[in-house]
Amino acid sequence: MKNDTICALATANGMGAIGIIRISGDEAFSIVNRVFKGDDLEKVSSHTIHYGFIKDVDEVIDEVMVSVFHAPKTFTTEDSVEISFHGSPHIAKRILEVLIKNGARMAKAGEFSLRAFMHGRIDLSQAESIADLIASENEASRKVALNQLKGGISQEISLLRSDLLNFTSLIELELDFSEEDVEFADRTALLHLLNKIELKLKSLIDSFQYGNALKNGTAVAIMGKPNAGKSTLLNALLKEERAIVSNIAGTTRDTIEEVLHIKGHAFRLIDTAGLRDTVDEIEAIGVQKAREKVAQAEVLVYLADIGTQDFSEDFNMLKSLLREGLKLIICLTKTDKEQHLVFDSIEESFRKAIQYSFDLIKISVLENSNIQVLKDELSSYVEQLKSETSNVVITNQRHFEALQKSLEAVVRVKEAVDAAITTELLAYELRNAIEALGEISGEFTNDEILGNIFSKFCIGK
Amino acid sequence: MKNDTICALATANGMGAIGIIRISGDEAFSIVNRVFKGDDLEKVSSHTIHYGFIKDVDEVIDEVMVSVFHAPKTFTTEDSVEISFHGSPHIAKRILEVLIKNGARMAKAGEFSLRAFMHGRIDLSQAESIADLIASENEASRKVALNQLKGGISQEISLLRSDLLNFTSLIELELDFSEEDVEFADRTALLHLLNKIELKLKSLIDSFQYGNALKNGTAVAIMGKPNAGKSTLLNALLKEERAIVSNIAGTTRDTIEEVLHIKGHAFRLIDTAGLRDTVDEIEAIGVQKAREKVAQAEVLVYLADIGTQDFSEDFNMLKSLLREGLKLIICLTKTDKEQHLVFDSIEESFRKAIQYSFDLIKISVLENSNIQVLKDELSSYVEQLKSETSNVVITNQRHFEALQKSLEAVVRVKEAVDAAITTELLAYELRNAIEALGEISGEFTNDEILGNIFSKFCIGK
Repeated sequence: MKNDTICALATANGMGAIGIIRISGDEAFSIVNRVFKGDDLEKVSSHTIHYGFIKDVDEVIDEVMVSVFHAPKTFTTEDSVEISFHGSPHIAKRILEVLIKNGARMAKAGEFSLRAFMHGRIDLSQAESIADLIASENEASRKVALNQLKGGISQEISLLRSDLLNFTSLIELELDFSEEDVEFADRTALLHLLNKIELKLKSLIDSFQYGNALKNGTAVAIMGKPNAGKSTLLNALLKEERAIVSNIAGTTRDTIEEVLHIKGHAFRLIDTAGLRDTVDEIEAIGVQKAREKVAQAEVLVYLADIGTQDFSEDFNMLKSLLREGLKLIICLTKTDKEQHLVFDSIEESFRKAIQYSFDLIKISVLENSNIQVLKDELSSYVEQLKSETSNVVITNQRHFEALQKSLEAVVRVKEAVDAAITTELLAYELRNAIEALGEISGEFTNDEILGNIFSKFCIGK
Repeated sequence: MKNDTICALATANGMGAIGIIRISGDEAFSIVNRVFKGDDLEKVSSHTIHYGFIKDVDEVIDEVMVSVFHAPKTFTTEDSVEISFHGSPHIAKRILEVLIKNGARMAKAGEFSLRAFMHGRIDLSQAESIADLIASENEASRKVALNQLKGGISQEISLLRSDLLNFTSLIELELDFSEEDVEFADRTALLHLLNKIELKLKSLIDSFQYGNALKNGTAVAIMGKPNAGKSTLLNALLKEERAIVSNIAGTTRDTIEEVLHIKGHAFRLIDTAGLRDTVDEIEAIGVQKAREKVAQAEVLVYLADIGTQDFSEDFNMLKSLLREGLKLIICLTKTDKEQHLVFDSIEESFRKAIQYSFDLIKISVLENSNIQVLKDELSSYVEQLKSETSNVVITNQRHFEALQKSLEAVVRVKEAVDAAITTELLAYELRNAIEALGEISGEFTNDEILGNIFSKFCIGK
């Protein structure tokens, strides 16, 4: 297969001490040789670094270091070069121009990874995990992406597929001997395997909720009546966070949402700025707006002033906000002002009034008491999702959909076995299920799907 | 000298396919070895690249490529390592944390370059040129920075210094024989050399205007009465510019000003957005505002509608805007509507009225005529600055000031020779001049100056 030579800026956009331009393809060495004044790159060993200059004919563009990687032990499995230059975007542009002038072309988004996949170096889910790694913003999402890069998901799926393939071979053998009406494939054993696969698929599908929490963080709404202490609590939570974020140079956060990190898990505080204002004027705007916010959340942290004489307004608001699956944490605030004796009776009155399971925490920002308990509570919510989850966690929408498709196909096979339909039809349904399972690792795919997946990568990856 | 081991993100902040963390210092290899699962970096050859994983004890942080550089053939002349990782800011943070935990410390801004300078690998003006290269936004500033990196300025200064040093040695020899009243140093020849140095210093100082144009671009104000065609012309000029800028992926422009590039030179259109509105309401706001804008400009492009019956308003506005040293280009606009016969008489009337040298261009954006002539005119303004300039161009404020200080010192030596003062005083003034010249390359410097220079570098450089 002929591979034209592609090039792209591989480091982040903007000014930096160093920028890297990556080149890959059959003519990587000869093209770079034409613009590089230094060692002859076609004659040097793989995985070595060479000092020199990038030139456009006689004009020096920059002083550079060039790394040489011989096929096939490279990311793309093709001959590859990395040019390390003084990290000005203008210099990047000039070097790319001169590479293009000498026979390379600009890589499309994700094209290096696409080549790694097309040449069989990584499977599709590993390619996707690279994009996830680069986009990872916290410990949890980094870990799950790294696990996927190591082939975690593909391995689980691959085991299931090979078992199913064995049965399919036997079923297809029956087709060859169809006149003899023999059964090579034990239908009971097949059903047993199908049940096992169904369970596994369901467990992987269920892990998507946890995976989503890992990848995108858990959405948390913080609500309560005016003056219940929302702003104070938010500031207390986020103050520490901001200190953490600015602690080490070189980290940036572009998100508009306020994000809390607890034990490596991200918690997105839904439209907090808005909430602070909105909920303070809750009577004016009505409960509708608050309900919309809570609809986006997985966790509701509801604040009530422990000194409230009559909680019926809180009861009513809560009842209008609650919905199935929502995790509720009620915080009694300003506990520094009140005797703790009233605590139990308040909890009891909430239980009676809202008839919904919740955790109760007494909070005093003033005394800095129990803020950590709230954090632990949020953290344990995610941990509990994890405990319901198999070792391998699905974080990718495409995998989620492919797994659902596989599950449907497996259920159809089961029905086919139960209905004792023809061997031909059974083989057909089995093939469908195997194909659906193969979509995750890219064993069955098409250009449209690939284009869709890799176009979301950044240029240079 | 003991060099503790420093580390920093060397690539631009933000998400990219690849990020690079740079480590330098006596323990670079042993520290990275502690966190790197792969080849033993203390045993591999210099300038080689190794695949492996960065680990925090047992936890894998990322799959990486590690480049090893043995002292002294490295940027800092110290043992150095570059870790190429999946370019997430979060992963960068984690790797830096684990390096710090194992004995490295975060580098200060410019600390790698500072070490290169302290160890004598580059001189001070070369270190500065690296920062300039990284910040270069156009061809001209890239070229002048690259020339400086090659040692251009240091060489010129160094030649002058060594001539002066020779004379100083002779003068100081006279001090040893002071009782004998001999003159080893020919005062006429010394004066001749001092005159030569004075001329050279003046020429370098003069080059700062061109250098500034290269580095920061030339400030251009575009003005004229309401409806003279400013917006149309601006759009015509900038439309092409925008196309150029967005032509190649991977380039970004953060500047708020509108910038035009002509033949590799940048032209900053002063507060253009403001101008468009402001000047259209010139009568309302008064001429003061317009004058403030023009005060920032090196070039004034003044537009006048060729169909104007009475130019006296234009004459008055121009007269109030002009000042010494301002380059004036008058554009007669909407020339598609008028006979070109009137052209000469209009030029004549402007000359008589404003008594100031200018170039006149007929412009029709509609017919796209002579927009290129305007561009050539702007370009030749910068070229003409260049022709008045020596081969070496000063772009750095610090160099400019050091050269001025040197010039003053040289003038004082000349006065000292003329006044036939004591040999002791002459030697003293000569030492002053030599020291001033040495400041540019960093031969005479102090920690405060160094701290000031390198703190403006980015982290990781």
